Amino acid sequence: MNLETIKNLIRDVPDFPKPGIIFKDITPLLQNPEAFSFVTREFVREYQDKNIDVIVGIESRGFLFGSVLAHALGKPMAIVRKKGKLPHVTVSFTYQLEYGEDTIEMHEDAVPKGAKVLVVDDLLATGGTCEATAKLIEKMGGEVSAMAFVIELDFLKGRERLQSYPIFSLLHY
Amino acid sequence: MNLETIKNLIRDVPDFPKPGIIFKDITPLLQNPEAFSFVTREFVREYQDKNIDVIVGIESRGFLFGSVLAHALGKPMAIVRKKGKLPHVTVSFTYQLEYGEDTIEMHEDAVPKGAKVLVVDDLLATGGTCEATAKLIEKMGGEVSAMAFVIELDFLKGRERLQSYPIFSLLHY
Repeated sequence: MNLETIKNLIRDVPDFPKPGIIFKDITPLLQNPEAFSFVTREFVREYQDKNIDVIVGIESRGFLFGSVLAHALGKPMAIVRKKGKLPHVTVSFTYQLEYGEDTIEMHEDAVPKGAKVLVVDDLLATGGTCEATAKLIEKMGGEVSAMAFVIELDFLKGRERLQSYPIFSLLHY
Repeated sequence: MNLETIKNLIRDVPDFPKPGIIFKDITPLLQNPEAFSFVTREFVREYQDKNIDVIVGIESRGFLFGSVLAHALGKPMAIVRKKGKLPHVTVSFTYQLEYGEDTIEMHEDAVPKGAKVLVVDDLLATGGTCEATAKLIEKMGGEVSAMAFVIELDFLKGRERLQSYPIFSLLHY
């Protein structure tokens, strides 16, 4: 098992969710236990000696990788969801999209003040949702210490947008 | 760590998602690594000697528990989502709700024919989504060998509706 094998388990789906976009589908990777385990081990190796208090997974594919990583590192798992999905008292953050806006939320007790947070998602594209997640965490008094992605689409320059945060991506396109 | 401790980490949220419903919020459990680990160990103990080929997590809280369990058991992880979220070719199943209907989907390659499937979600209520998931898996040629839940709301009688499937729930209300 190596990065090339992992890359072969990412499926290109043309014209999803809209024409002209090639979607990177991680479900074949999930269906291969050795590959999923390899990805988790690479994340663990990157973060096991770093100072992390909370893992935050972004709805909903970030839940798949985030929860396994939180479990492997023995850290608390917290979740970011679209507005209206979380039942308890929330803190929210609204951000601009290409057309319109979107709002994400976390439970008010998800990130303690001063906590060092690792944000996890499957893919870094333009970085809009990740930037909003970071700002939401900061609004709650947390500190975004790291961001981890299985896939980074380099040509969309999300890394530039998120330049104040240390980013680790396993695969680059 | 024991079941009583876990139960204390399930938060009752009154009137969510609508008046009169008391929502069982599992996020405090996720934020406690020892508790999350305990839940996973209980699931592993239940299923480690059983014949399971694929773990299927139901969107989106089922992703959190399902992926950790799949990882712990070394089994493939597959996901069920609401219509329109999965990028590749899907198989879908439409089911009735109290008012209207809903459609869930899986990728056509998520469950091989004859595969023995363990369905995972955070909560068993009336069992509507779980029953639809089981029928979708059967439509794909898979066999639902087991269903695992962190929480079962006994008074909603989901277990009766799902009586053809072996169910394991950690906590009962």
